[in-house]
Amino acid sequence: MHRYKLFLEYDGSNYVGWQRQDNGPSIQAALEAAIEAFCGDVARTQAAGRTDAGVHALAMVVHVDLTKPHAPDVVRDAINQHLKPAPIAVLRAVEIDADFHARFSCVRRAYEYRIINRRAPLTLDKNRAWRVTPHLDVEKMDQAAQALVGKHDFTTFRAAQCQSETPVKSLEQISVMRAGDDVVIRCAARSFLHHQVRSFTGSLVEVGRGKWGVNEVKKALEAKDRKRCGPVAPPDGLYFMRADYESAP
Amino acid sequence: MHRYKLFLEYDGSNYVGWQRQDNGPSIQAALEAAIEAFCGDVARTQAAGRTDAGVHALAMVVHVDLTKPHAPDVVRDAINQHLKPAPIAVLRAVEIDADFHARFSCVRRAYEYRIINRRAPLTLDKNRAWRVTPHLDVEKMDQAAQALVGKHDFTTFRAAQCQSETPVKSLEQISVMRAGDDVVIRCAARSFLHHQVRSFTGSLVEVGRGKWGVNEVKKALEAKDRKRCGPVAPPDGLYFMRADYESAP
Repeated sequence: MHRYKLFLEYDGSNYVGWQRQDNGPSIQAALEAAIEAFCGDVARTQAAGRTDAGVHALAMVVHVDLTKPHAPDVVRDAINQHLKPAPIAVLRAVEIDADFHARFSCVRRAYEYRIINRRAPLTLDKNRAWRVTPHLDVEKMDQAAQALVGKHDFTTFRAAQCQSETPVKSLEQISVMRAGDDVVIRCAARSFLHHQVRSFTGSLVEVGRGKWGVNEVKKALEAKDRKRCGPVAPPDGLYFMRADYESAP
Repeated sequence: MHRYKLFLEYDGSNYVGWQRQDNGPSIQAALEAAIEAFCGDVARTQAAGRTDAGVHALAMVVHVDLTKPHAPDVVRDAINQHLKPAPIAVLRAVEIDADFHARFSCVRRAYEYRIINRRAPLTLDKNRAWRVTPHLDVEKMDQAAQALVGKHDFTTFRAAQCQSETPVKSLEQISVMRAGDDVVIRCAARSFLHHQVRSFTGSLVEVGRGKWGVNEVKKALEAKDRKRCGPVAPPDGLYFMRADYESAP
């Protein structure tokens, strides 16, 4: 078997998410169908993160085992050819050791959440960002967010259906920045809980619009109570940005 | 009558262009229908630029006369309400003197053309950029572009169907820049000919990929011959960015 690491970009708007599911089209099923059409292999792909319905990726990392060797650029171009016209593309393919695992070898995942802070509805960014109409105080949001950094029990910011064995995770970094009407929340951690970034975002928006004080994010975290989370932000603005590995080509 | 200046954002992908036409939906017809639904006025709108089918705008300037006065924010919100779910939005509305004309008072228009320079097909940027696969030498493109600055007969870079009285225009500035795979061409002038920016772009891409030498853009300009233009770039990557006026709120 020959293992390939793929970097995948996709528009998740019309998908049920990364993972193969019975209730609609998934990124995984589209990718696996394209792989089969290319080389005949009925292969199971593994991804660094399982994005939800409507969530996008700029560089999701996936691995797959193929029975025959192919030049990596051939793998990329052939899969892309068979993915058309789906809004999913392999940006890059690399042949990699069989002990590499896109999910289990991953040491850091990075997400971005994009808000457009304005009154007018979205046009070009429809499904690609969350429009928030009240003015957001980004400095307060960034200040409040820093209470989330470090190792914590993130029960407050975890979906009920989360399958993680533990709610304890280490958030490496989080920042909130503004450029014009664009407000971007960036965060990185070894791993995330289900809906964690969207739960952070919804809560930070409560701070930004003045409904929560800056300290309320810290208090909500410490309460370890899902009911203390702000409204969970919609999937539209969430992007899987990067997966890091110890030694990676 | 009360004249309003509107700043319009739109995704032009599924429209025949700004201008009302018989062969399909236009931005102008959608806007005028929304204005009529809001206040009953059957008003004719005027825009700073007439974008083609598939071309987008981040801040097209339009004016319209309404019979009754309304608070500008009411005009913005009401038109947006009636525009839904079209990918067209009024970002801002301002009441303005009756001698203001969105098209004739405009002293500078700015466009951006966005190229994504990579092998993989587009996903999130489908219809929003032009994918060019050969590597582009952006420094050479920028160097070649400078020959276009100034007052010239732009016959080479003008569509056959252009309605301008003269092919002589003054290009104030043009630049070509890269950020990762994104290559952006920015230009500004008092006015542009039909297909001028897309003609510039197609020709500059010939330079970037090495099919044309840096001096060939200058030679093509001096030839004043439409046949010397490079392949016209598709509309997908073109954005109307800004219209400037002598004294503007």
